[in-house]
Amino acid sequence: MSTIELDAPELASSFGPAVALSCRECGARVPLGPQYVCVECFGPLEIAYDFTAPGRAPITRELIESGPASIWRYAPLLPVPADVASKPNLNPGWTRLVRAENLGRELGLRSLHIKDDSGNPTHSFKDRVVAIALEAARTFGFTTLSCSSTGNLAGAVGAAAARAGLDSCVFIPAGLETGKIVMAGVYEGELIAIDGTYDEVNRFCSELIGDEAGEGWGFVNVNLRPYYAEGSKTLAYEIAEQLGWRLPEQIVIPVASGSQLTKIDKGFKELIALGLVEDAPYRIFGAQADGCSPVAAAFRDGHDVVQPVRPDTIAKSLAIGNPADGPYVLDIARRTGGAVESVSDKEVVEAIRLLARTEGVFAEPAGGVTVGVLRKLVETGKLDPSAETVVINSGDGLKTLDAVAGAGLTATIPPSLAAFRSARS
Amino acid sequence: MSTIELDAPELASSFGPAVALSCRECGARVPLGPQYVCVECFGPLEIAYDFTAPGRAPITRELIESGPASIWRYAPLLPVPADVASKPNLNPGWTRLVRAENLGRELGLRSLHIKDDSGNPTHSFKDRVVAIALEAARTFGFTTLSCSSTGNLAGAVGAAAARAGLDSCVFIPAGLETGKIVMAGVYEGELIAIDGTYDEVNRFCSELIGDEAGEGWGFVNVNLRPYYAEGSKTLAYEIAEQLGWRLPEQIVIPVASGSQLTKIDKGFKELIALGLVEDAPYRIFGAQADGCSPVAAAFRDGHDVVQPVRPDTIAKSLAIGNPADGPYVLDIARRTGGAVESVSDKEVVEAIRLLARTEGVFAEPAGGVTVGVLRKLVETGKLDPSAETVVINSGDGLKTLDAVAGAGLTATIPPSLAAFRSARS
Repeated sequence: MSTIELDAPELASSFGPAVALSCRECGARVPLGPQYVCVECFGPLEIAYDFTAPGRAPITRELIESGPASIWRYAPLLPVPADVASKPNLNPGWTRLVRAENLGRELGLRSLHIKDDSGNPTHSFKDRVVAIALEAARTFGFTTLSCSSTGNLAGAVGAAAARAGLDSCVFIPAGLETGKIVMAGVYEGELIAIDGTYDEVNRFCSELIGDEAGEGWGFVNVNLRPYYAEGSKTLAYEIAEQLGWRLPEQIVIPVASGSQLTKIDKGFKELIALGLVEDAPYRIFGAQADGCSPVAAAFRDGHDVVQPVRPDTIAKSLAIGNPADGPYVLDIARRTGGAVESVSDKEVVEAIRLLARTEGVFAEPAGGVTVGVLRKLVETGKLDPSAETVVINSGDGLKTLDAVAGAGLTATIPPSLAAFRSARS
Repeated sequence: MSTIELDAPELASSFGPAVALSCRECGARVPLGPQYVCVECFGPLEIAYDFTAPGRAPITRELIESGPASIWRYAPLLPVPADVASKPNLNPGWTRLVRAENLGRELGLRSLHIKDDSGNPTHSFKDRVVAIALEAARTFGFTTLSCSSTGNLAGAVGAAAARAGLDSCVFIPAGLETGKIVMAGVYEGELIAIDGTYDEVNRFCSELIGDEAGEGWGFVNVNLRPYYAEGSKTLAYEIAEQLGWRLPEQIVIPVASGSQLTKIDKGFKELIALGLVEDAPYRIFGAQADGCSPVAAAFRDGHDVVQPVRPDTIAKSLAIGNPADGPYVLDIARRTGGAVESVSDKEVVEAIRLLARTEGVFAEPAGGVTVGVLRKLVETGKLDPSAETVVINSGDGLKTLDAVAGAGLTATIPPSLAAFRSARS
């Protein structure tokens, strides 16, 4: 693989508090590099940190609060250089935590917030993970940014590469929503549709990494995955800080690969370990669509392994039939006293409309999945209505207009009061 | 008109530093209320303030910097109550000021920033103005929020009313972009298309205010217009604060009604008067599309009055043929040494693509108009390429996909390396 050579001090400053890649299964450690699979046991690699190494400034609430209004306020907790905010990137994050009193009232919840990630630069949480992967790509000397994507990631990679001055080539399954295709193509990188499911696109990208055609390419969610995945921790940090440095008692998170959910759990645990929040219990709930619910099915059946499925749902951004982090999601949901639940496409659409009508937030189907599952969890008594609850909206309804195609005009009239009165009578 | 009765102290606390409505033409003052036209001379009413009244805390940089990450950090400069941030609203603003080094290099500009308002809750600058109008509507006891809209305002009003628990009924010209119609309709208020231009929709709304059908309605851009318009000042405040409490030397602003441009000028002047920024000269440039360029035409011809036109441009959010603030725009452009310029629809599309390719920002045609005019101003020598320049992107490309319908897939292939190589050769 063609990358620039870095000596140890350079690497150390490029990755901030990160010190190694560590296997999630066997714990084996390897130096930071563009690897993602453990050579010992084929387990997934993730970032290991030393937040309290000699010479590092203590990480305090005040330090974070004095940082920029983006994920870079948490740079001391991420595998990025200290000067990351000054480099050309999309500066995602620090999105709104909406106090959802209307929706809470309608569902019978005492305290509900929506973490609305549609405010990110390309309007999904994917800007967070790509921003971290981009810094790793720069450090490793990659000249092309790539990915397999269910749609949102394609736009996030195209935009980030444009800002950073890198080439991009992204791969999507054929048949995605028009909004996602145009948004991925407008940045003028390469955009290639593959006849197949997301899981087939993903396998193709793994092949491409071993091929000379993929030389010098950083696949954000494949060979840069350990870095990329850390971006989701920033959702945990922001929610805790925006609640006044407190963990929510319950949180509902969409599950595609499962990475977001596992990293939010990791983020909460880091905040506790660093003394930035009180060590209080929290319950994590995963949300899937019935048409792609392998993790919810395993949770329901009491299994530890996840049986892959072929997705069939309007929640295309969650349509990963063979979720890499499925077993970890099951483990976290069970350990924290949460659950993994799914809802039908009909319930997804109803939840999109409910969220729009009550809070003025227009979500894509993934947001409909989390709000729909939230409702179901309340109705079935699995979620405590008196506990402080956060639900994540990871994307934007503008990219998936077909889901609410019925929404629109009440009437079309000539410009006259008589016509107006008659249209309303 | 059916509104709640407020005594003077209540009114004073509801509108913060605002003390009266003042006629822009004759200077006559009337008490704060749902009025918009001077009874003396039919001139437009705007908000008059007393920022230094006895008992008011001094407005300092530190006070503002300690506020929330939304327009409410500037509450002491706006006609809103001090506790406005705690009320249910969309908390817009504090959007990214993007350092646009790639675009600057391409255009030959030394220092260029993009104020990217696509990060607002409904993805346009309209959330700013609606948030202020909403507070006034609450104070006056209106139960329905309404407007005439070229598209973005419709979504902003629908979402804000949903969050605030008010009814909404918005009016748009027939033939708007699908994204704008769905986004306006999804919040489940009334959405009525009028067969006619925006100017005809606007006239219809003025009629409706005098009719019993419009009783108890706050039209954000008609009877609440003095409050609404002040929201655009927050663009000026944010740009100055994000530049490190400094005014830009040049700024390019889209011109529809002209209100945004005049209020940014007002905001800059307030910051100087309050000693929050140094008193340095700035030049203001207005941007229009050729197909609706009555202000640019008047500027070019040296006229003080603006001749109305019938709009014909893809920049529908700027398609106001009879711009209320046109004469003020002309005055400001001339006084500050700026200009008002226009570009063709072809140049608008090229500029959308240029902005996406260089900075990863996906703008709607209004953003293409400002970037296109920026380019034209540099090429014709009207803009100083060595001076610090800011350009405003007021909306989001996701709402107007047709403008870049050509953007999209490079290729569709089966999942094989051979097919990939052959597609790229």
